[in-house]
Amino acid sequence: MSPFRASPGFTQAWHHFDLEVADGVATVTLNRPDKLNALTFDVYADLRDLLAELPHRGDVRVLVLTGRGRGFCSGGDVEEIIGELRAMAPAQLLEFTRMTGAVVKALRECPLPVIASVNGVAAGAGSVIALASDFRLLGESASFAFLFTKVGLAGADMGSAYLLPRLVGLGRATELLVLGDRVDAAYADRIGLATKVVPDEELAETTAALAARLAQGPALAYSTTKVLLTRELDMDLGSSIELEAMTQALLMRSDDHAEFFAAWSAGRRPQWSGR
Amino acid sequence: MSPFRASPGFTQAWHHFDLEVADGVATVTLNRPDKLNALTFDVYADLRDLLAELPHRGDVRVLVLTGRGRGFCSGGDVEEIIGELRAMAPAQLLEFTRMTGAVVKALRECPLPVIASVNGVAAGAGSVIALASDFRLLGESASFAFLFTKVGLAGADMGSAYLLPRLVGLGRATELLVLGDRVDAAYADRIGLATKVVPDEELAETTAALAARLAQGPALAYSTTKVLLTRELDMDLGSSIELEAMTQALLMRSDDHAEFFAAWSAGRRPQWSGR
Amino acid sequence: MSPFRASPGFTQAWHHFDLEVADGVATVTLNRPDKLNALTFDVYADLRDLLAELPHRGDVRVLVLTGRGRGFCSGGDVEEIIGELRAMAPAQLLEFTRMTGAVVKALRECPLPVIASVNGVAAGAGSVIALASDFRLLGESASFAFLFTKVGLAGADMGSAYLLPRLVGLGRATELLVLGDRVDAAYADRIGLATKVVPDEELAETTAALAARLAQGPALAYSTTKVLLTRELDMDLGSSIELEAMTQALLMRSDDHAEFFAAWSAGRRPQWSGR
Repeated sequence: MSPFRASPGFTQAWHHFDLEVADGVATVTLNRPDKLNALTFDVYADLRDLLAELPHRGDVRVLVLTGRGRGFCSGGDVEEIIGELRAMAPAQLLEFTRMTGAVVKALRECPLPVIASVNGVAAGAGSVIALASDFRLLGESASFAFLFTKVGLAGADMGSAYLLPRLVGLGRATELLVLGDRVDAAYADRIGLATKVVPDEELAETTAALAARLAQGPALAYSTTKVLLTRELDMDLGSSIELEAMTQALLMRSDDHAEFFAAWSAGRRPQWSGR
Repeated sequence: MSPFRASPGFTQAWHHFDLEVADGVATVTLNRPDKLNALTFDVYADLRDLLAELPHRGDVRVLVLTGRGRGFCSGGDVEEIIGELRAMAPAQLLEFTRMTGAVVKALRECPLPVIASVNGVAAGAGSVIALASDFRLLGESASFAFLFTKVGLAGADMGSAYLLPRLVGLGRATELLVLGDRVDAAYADRIGLATKVVPDEELAETTAALAARLAQGPALAYSTTKVLLTRELDMDLGSSIELEAMTQALLMRSDDHAEFFAAWSAGRRPQWSGR
Repeated sequence: MSPFRASPGFTQAWHHFDLEVADGVATVTLNRPDKLNALTFDVYADLRDLLAELPHRGDVRVLVLTGRGRGFCSGGDVEEIIGELRAMAPAQLLEFTRMTGAVVKALRECPLPVIASVNGVAAGAGSVIALASDFRLLGESASFAFLFTKVGLAGADMGSAYLLPRLVGLGRATELLVLGDRVDAAYADRIGLATKVVPDEELAETTAALAARLAQGPALAYSTTKVLLTRELDMDLGSSIELEAMTQALLMRSDDHAEFFAAWSAGRRPQWSGR
């Protein structure tokens, strides 16, 4: 557990998705399979708050996001979200759109690596949640659809117009966000939107292997890499190099770097502590 | 027509290219086929001013750029531009280079989606005009050539050194801009410079279909998506998410989003008004 | 030679790599083949200072970086660098990490095009040096490995977390920098990390041809293209267009642009002076 905790304790129960923590791996499973795990107001709020809390628990080194059943996440529920929003005033609408954006901001700023294990359709907000993750493992039948314009909304939602061009380039991002068409796994792989595509029946195993590798490896090294990748998108060359110089000088004093050298000198494999 | 028009009326005639407006689609056809549609001073000036005026007309929702004959646009005319520039003083040269840059700035800042229908060679400034468009549809025999260094000029022209790395990455952009070699349609497709490549004889039809889709669909949604993609290239993550939250809250009050929900509730297809 | 030289003369001998200058091409050959050209403190310092001096010599228009033997550069030597760093205090560690970062900054800010001729493994700092070059020519058996996390350090080193996402996108950069696995030449080519892959036995010849083309061509045009590509990664659209307008107006007064027009008018090939 982090030594720096304020008055709130850790949340005992998350009601709007399944959360499992084991061996340093936290797994969030969206659990409305009959709706392809469509999001409700509650799921967004729980995701936002879980992401704020998770890095402080001390027992988690990697977060996996996945969906139960044949979908990953079909986005905001048409009845339970779009229908409700029809009745809201601008101030409330803004509270909602800020909440959804806060989930993406938290995913990017979370110092833990996040794996989206995309087991089926990822649509709308579901696509953006996968986009904001660090690794996107896709089953062969998985797909993305940034379908916001198809419901009359801006294709720029929850940071998608910031993130997608930085993954696949402005040209392809324009195509995907303006048109909102389905992107299959093979095309996602070709353009750099998928980290890896595997047969559907191997997705769980591939996800578990990557999560275990990240949880058992040099966690501070992984964490700082993710954090600097996020930050340096918004930094210039000179400042980025200075930040990396500072970070690396700190990491040279880390237990894991010392362990690497000791193991190398002794001709054995390093035993990472993650510190 | 936009309710906010100042004293100038709309230009009645554009003398330096063909302009056709029909069903919400404005089509600019460069029309010097014997010169592969090489640009003159007049064409640049007309493009700059048309792009400023077009969004205010109210009868246009998408702009198509194409060329008559077997070329798209071979860039600045060697005799009529390069030859003339040889005699100019620095202040005049700067007026020229600022005008060409203003065309690209206007293309990126224009709130309408722009389709470059690249029907043949796009060279020099012709390449950059296509690059600054939102969609690049290419016939199989089309090609790009950022050939500025081949005439002894910087490969960075009209914003090419800003835009190209954001589409194809810094490595490939360096290759294309420093060397200035021909890029065929297949390679453009592979690296993300082409939106789509089709057989030459299908280009007009493919272009018309995309233009019609953009003109008849939720135009405000398309427009805001383009505008935010442009702006967020220059914004940080947090500010981008806030801009998207504001934008989406506004769009949630739009006619088209209301129409989506009404159509969905009634089990019919939405009738987009573009508002 | 540059007309603007201060008191220091040019360095007569570089002790920590081989430097050859011929026909406008400077070639640095890392020369510890028995260690796959692992870097020492001295090599870093020499690279940093050579890069500062090279543009002022006046006899060099392009820099080639390569390695002797079967490797390009295996990164920091475990014994001679990592071992030594174990004993250092924070201020010294920071001097080291700033020096390594300064090599990358100098590579990007050097107004000469830089070719990395990657003749074998490029690992750790060796990968980043290739990444910071303008062209990466790879033999088929060459590979990259941003293996920093494998020694317990941040994958963000020497600007890698700034540069790599700008070449291959954030998704693939995350994979490569967090995991640190080997990237073979074919995959590097596919994602835009390689400029070109050739059979191993053709690498020297391909490198020489590109270097000669850059050295004998319009050098000021090449140089300004590189410099603007570097700078505009950190600039917004409007400022980039203004910078390009200023640059191009200047280049329109260059000898090489005048030579292009004279040659074109006379129907002959231009004789580039590089000015």
